[in-house]
Formats: sequence, C-alpha cells, structure tokens
Amino acid sequence: MNERAGEPSGTASREFFTARTVGEALAGFRPARRTAVEDIGLAEALHRVPAADVRAPAAMPGFARSTVDGYAVRAADTYGASDGLPSYLDLAGAVRMGAAPTAVVSHGKCVAIPTGAALPDGADAVVMVEYTAETMPGTIEVTRPIAPGSGLVRADEDAAAGDVLIRAGRPMRAPHLGLLAAAGVTAVAVHARPRVAIVSTGDEVVPPETTTLAAGQVRDATASALAGLIRDAGGEAVQVGIVPDDRATLQATLRAALAANDLVVVSAGSSVGARDETAGAVAALGRIWCHGLAVKPGKPTLLAECAGVPLLGLPGNPLSALVVFRLVGVPLVWRLAGCELPPPEPTVRARLGRDLASATGRLDVVQVAVRDGVAEPLFGPSALLSVLARADGYLVVPEPATGLDGGAEVEVILYR
Amino acid sequence: MNERAGEPSGTASREFFTARTVGEALAGFRPARRTAVEDIGLAEALHRVPAADVRAPAAMPGFARSTVDGYAVRAADTYGASDGLPSYLDLAGAVRMGAAPTAVVSHGKCVAIPTGAALPDGADAVVMVEYTAETMPGTIEVTRPIAPGSGLVRADEDAAAGDVLIRAGRPMRAPHLGLLAAAGVTAVAVHARPRVAIVSTGDEVVPPETTTLAAGQVRDATASALAGLIRDAGGEAVQVGIVPDDRATLQATLRAALAANDLVVVSAGSSVGARDETAGAVAALGRIWCHGLAVKPGKPTLLAECAGVPLLGLPGNPLSALVVFRLVGVPLVWRLAGCELPPPEPTVRARLGRDLASATGRLDVVQVAVRDGVAEPLFGPSALLSVLARADGYLVVPEPATGLDGGAEVEVILYR
Repeated sequence: MNERAGEPSGTASREFFTARTVGEALAGFRPARRTAVEDIGLAEALHRVPAADVRAPAAMPGFARSTVDGYAVRAADTYGASDGLPSYLDLAGAVRMGAAPTAVVSHGKCVAIPTGAALPDGADAVVMVEYTAETMPGTIEVTRPIAPGSGLVRADEDAAAGDVLIRAGRPMRAPHLGLLAAAGVTAVAVHARPRVAIVSTGDEVVPPETTTLAAGQVRDATASALAGLIRDAGGEAVQVGIVPDDRATLQATLRAALAANDLVVVSAGSSVGARDETAGAVAALGRIWCHGLAVKPGKPTLLAECAGVPLLGLPGNPLSALVVFRLVGVPLVWRLAGCELPPPEPTVRARLGRDLASATGRLDVVQVAVRDGVAEPLFGPSALLSVLARADGYLVVPEPATGLDGGAEVEVILYR
Repeated sequence: MNERAGEPSGTASREFFTARTVGEALAGFRPARRTAVEDIGLAEALHRVPAADVRAPAAMPGFARSTVDGYAVRAADTYGASDGLPSYLDLAGAVRMGAAPTAVVSHGKCVAIPTGAALPDGADAVVMVEYTAETMPGTIEVTRPIAPGSGLVRADEDAAAGDVLIRAGRPMRAPHLGLLAAAGVTAVAVHARPRVAIVSTGDEVVPPETTTLAAGQVRDATASALAGLIRDAGGEAVQVGIVPDDRATLQATLRAALAANDLVVVSAGSSVGARDETAGAVAALGRIWCHGLAVKPGKPTLLAECAGVPLLGLPGNPLSALVVFRLVGVPLVWRLAGCELPPPEPTVRARLGRDLASATGRLDVVQVAVRDGVAEPLFGPSALLSVLARADGYLVVPEPATGLDGGAEVEVILYR
C-alpha cells in the first residue's frame, strides 16, 4: 500500500515464513555462537562472564585468623571458668597485625591478639576481651569457657586450594571481585563483550544530529535506545548508520555487518515495503528462522541466522522495537557472552488499575506507571516513544490468557 | 586488646560518639554536596542523572504521521461504508516515505500512504489497507467507516514544544536515550559521576597483586568489591591504596582524598586499634555524625562530614563493609549525583528456610541462597567473603523485630 506495494517481492514474501511465539523463540532460536575468550584485569571484571570456573590457587585465608579482639588460648585451659572462678593465664606476648606470630601458646599461657591477626602456634581458640580482665600485669583472668575453634576462622575456611570461587557462565558481581582480589587472582578469562551492529533502515530516518526536519522525516530514535539496552546486557553497540530502503545497499551493509559482529540488529523502516526489503535482503544471506512473533506490540519481527551470526529484524516503531529487543535480543546478547541466565530484573507486585483485553495465543506487553501499589496501563500508538519514557515498567499478559481483570495482582517488571 | 589497647585514644574514643540506626542514617546523614554539572553526548548518557528537566525543542513527531499502511482520507467520506455498500474514492497519488506529501486529499479523494509517512493536506484520518480494495485502477473501495484522527498520530502527540521529556534527578534509561534522539537533543547537562576515594588501612593488608602472602597478611578484598558497587551506583572509584595503621599518615592521606573527591570511603583495619586510629584521624578533619550503626553485620561504621565532603568509615571485615556500603554508601553516591531515588533493586519473594533470631533495635542483614522458592540463610564469620559470593541476595530483619520464623514469606533483595 505504498509505491512499492504492487511489486512482486520474490523470496521476501512474508507468507513463506512461520510466525512463532516468544516462548518458542527463546527456546528454539539459540545460535551456538559465543564470543572469544580474553584475559582481563580485576578493574574491568564487573558484570563480565567468566569463560571457565575460577579456582582458588591456595587455601584462603591461608592461615588461621582471629575473628575477635582477645586472647589466643588452649580451649581446655578455659573449661569450667566463670565469673566466680576464673581461669588465670600467663600473658606470653602479643601478635602484631600483618606479622607472623612470635609467641607460642602452651598450657596455662595466652597471647594477646587483634581481630584478623594470625593465630599463634599452640592455640586452638580465641577468647573475646569482653570475657577477660588483666587484673595483674601479665596475668589474664578468663571468665567463660570456650570451645576449640571459637573466635577464629580456619586456614581454609573461605576456600581450600582448588575450590571453585566463581562459576563459569554467570556475570560477576561486586563481591566476586573481592573474592578474586583476596585469592590474588588479578586476571580472569572472560567472554569478550558481544559486538552488536545496529543497522537502521528507512528513507524517512535521519540522524539525531539533524537540527531541522524536512516534512516526513524522523530522527533515528531506536538506534540510541537499542545501544543503551545492548550496553546494559554487557554488549558493545556498533552503530552502522542509516541505510536507505534499497535492497542492494541493505544487502551489502548487512553482509559487512555480519562479517564483523556477533549479532546484527536491523531497525527496519516502518512501512510494509521497507520490512519486505529487509526480509528479502536477509533471505539472500542466511536462513530465516521466523518472520512474525506472536507479541503485541512487536509482531513484524524477524529472526535469522546468517553463517552462524544471529540477525534480529525489529519492527519499525521504536516502542515495538524496544519491547521485542528486551524480550528476545537481551537474552541473546547475554548468551553470546556465555551467560545462559541473565541477571534478574527488578519487579514489584501491584494491583492492575483497569481491565486489559488480550487475544489468546499472543503475548501482550503493556507499559505501566506504578503509583501507590497500582499499575496503571499507559496506552497510545506504538509510534509514541513518550509512552515508554513515562513507564515505570511493563507487565505481560501471557499467551493463553484472554485478558486480565482490573484489581488483579500483577507482577510489574521495573525499568532501571 | 592489641599492642595499642592501653594507649589513651584521645578524641578517638568511641564513647564520645552516638550510635544510630540505619533508618536514622539514611534520613539524617544527607550532605548537601552535589557533583558539578557537565554536558555529555547521547552515547554517554545511559544511567546518568540530568541536572535539569530536559524539554522538547519542538513538537514531536512534528507532523501528523500515519500509523498504518493504507489511504489518507476525509473521515466523513467513509461514513456509512460497509462490505455491502463501500465508499468509492479516487486515488489522487501516494506519499513517499521521508518526503513532503505532494498530493492533497479533497472530498471524494484519497492518497496512498505507508506507516510513518506524513499525512497529506486535507486528510483527517487513515484507513487501513485491510478495509480497502483497489477494484479498478485509480479507484479505492473503503468498506468501513472511520472516525477523524484514526490511523494517525498528531504532530504534537509525543510531545508539544517545551514539554518536559525527561525529569531532572532520575537516572536515564535506554528509552530515554531514544526520546532524546527523536527530539534532536544530542547533548544533556548531567551531574558528573561522583568521585569516590577508597582508602584501605591496616598493617596486615597487602595489594591483590601480592603473589605470596607472609604469615598474617591478607590481600585487600574490600577495595575491589567496593569499586564494583561504586561503579554500579554511577560513581567513579578512585583507589588511593593501602595506608599503614599510623595516625599521621592516615590523616595526611584522608586530607588529600577529601580535597580531590566527592566521597571518601575508609576500609578500616579490622582491629579495634586500627578503627580507633581512623576515628581519631577523622575527628581531626571534620565532624563525626555517628560512630556505630545498629546493623549486623556492620556495627563499627563511622559517618562524618569533613568540610562538606562525606566520609564513610567501614568495618574491617569485607562482608560487613560491603553490607554497610550497600545500605548507606550506595544511596549516598546516587545522591551526590543529584538522584534522590536510586533505581530499584531486583527482589523475589521466598519462604524462609529456618528460624532467624535478631536483637530488637538492630537491623539484621542476612545473606541467603534462594532455591525453589526457599531462602536459605548462609551463615559464617563475617570475615568470610565466600558467603557473600555464594549468596543470591539478602533479606533484612527490621529493627523492631526479634526474629523471623522459618516458613515465613520474606522479600529477598537479589544481587545482580
């Protein structure tokens, strides 16, 4: 229904391709490609995905350490001690922080020790200073019995040599960096950040830098938003630029993008003609896995694999494109980096502010604003970016449901 | 209880300072400092905090656009149309994507238009191609009546000129970048990333790069983990290095760090002596707001303000330090960047796997592993980093509670 509508679209005709549900796409469209493995330093390791289990090179902490300020003792010397009948121990010295203990604990003796210092030879427990008194210089009263192993961590209590510190395939969090530092592991083999090419198409699309729009032109909103989602998923966005709705140019651009990246995302022009051009260009370069996704918004989605590189053709409307990329593209970026289970998204339970109708067999993604525990659906044409920018998150009406009743408890996935 | 325990600690004596609850600290310790404002490009704007509302320079999309593939019409020309009695309209031309319409719609006429193209003059609605047929070349049958405004978005439907697109003080998300791009706003005034100095202290602490530890030494785990939390909170971690437990050296280091950063975090040595040294050095440089926080783990926490720069003294144990930094430090980093409401954390509801005891008046932070809907508390000395690395998240036993029963429904804040 535009100037090209009457042309035969050849291999691009959408009728040749199957539509799928989002669930089918997540379960079935799983390209084997993984990014290369590279060694990185601790300072770059946050949220990166280890390519192999990271093991402790040696026991941690490596020596028995006190966990309290007090006195290293033989536990047996404190048995029966009480306020009325303390044990009296000779002070045989003190351990200095960060130094090897020089004093030794033998029967009837104790050694002063600060939290974190190495346990002296002969001791098997540390009694807290709160349960002691130095009534005479050199003599320590202990007023409580303690068990062997109290007040300390063993030499291998954090990890034994060879223990797995961090599992492969899960993005590293801040505490993991601490664990690596403690183990002296200052370089980690991780999957490289997936390079994700963003190809924008559409004769109407102009760069965001365009100061004044001619009639009919729109600035490329989708590419900038996609770059943000890609970065959040641990990927590196490569903005290829805007390609006119021309089969040969698009095909050449896609071929180059596929050769240099781990994933190619096409932000298609919004007209049927532009979408058909994309499908035609992709069909010539690889295998189309599905064309059409049972999701609203986002139906005109295309998934393909071209010589091992996945390609994701997104709807032309920015809102639809972002909804689909969040559902299907984000897990794909994580998987390319070796992570099967992306980090959790924040959610909140809320009461639905009004009835929502939905067609069965289709996933509905509804943008909502959440106020005082009520999730209020935000409606508007999917051409509107402002809806997405105003939303606090979204809720999903699953494929089997025919809708949700106002007042129902729903889970809202919150944007962050 | 170490070699310095007998020395008078002067202004550093902890008895001079008040202990506070976490709630009091969050409500009451709110330094006025904000980072400077800087202009950044769209590609750097993700999760940055706008320093002022961002407004639309012009109406968006700027012209009435079709949201369907079909025909631009006068709605009145379709009134009464049906399959049995279609309206017949003369095809007066076609609108090209990205170009100003040349054809005009007048009574009895229509113009072919693709999704996203500019509405031609004279039209007030777009009828979907599905409800039309071109039975004779140049004549379009319309089989449904449509209302004025159908099938299009108005010139200012996304935003009118001057409308607020993005509010100050909230970190920008991926869709916001799309909205800015659509508006042609390619530079944004944001608060600079807060510079957060990490000062590690402790005679026992050595850099992570240390290959072989001498007895009593530990590698600096906390600094690397803190750097990760700071980055996640939008800050820039500045690792000052490890300072020995010496008042004069520590004071000089803190003075320099306070002069060059927006927040100074001291990862204190774990002994009472080292903590007292920190408190003494800080007392000489500014005002101590509290020394002692009613949280487990994390009691020996110090909050201070030194010539307008907040300073956070953390417990010596890595786990305690990270718990406190997450509770108190992360909101502080966001606030320094002008954001009062940090982005939401992911959470999950689960059944508590066992009873948890807690002292009333104290916040308990319990690390948990979550499996099959059950939150299993992970216990171990707070000196153990492996507990934190194994945890999926944490739950909080609030100040008034004396504990939680096994089987109770709890909310777990998930790490990501």
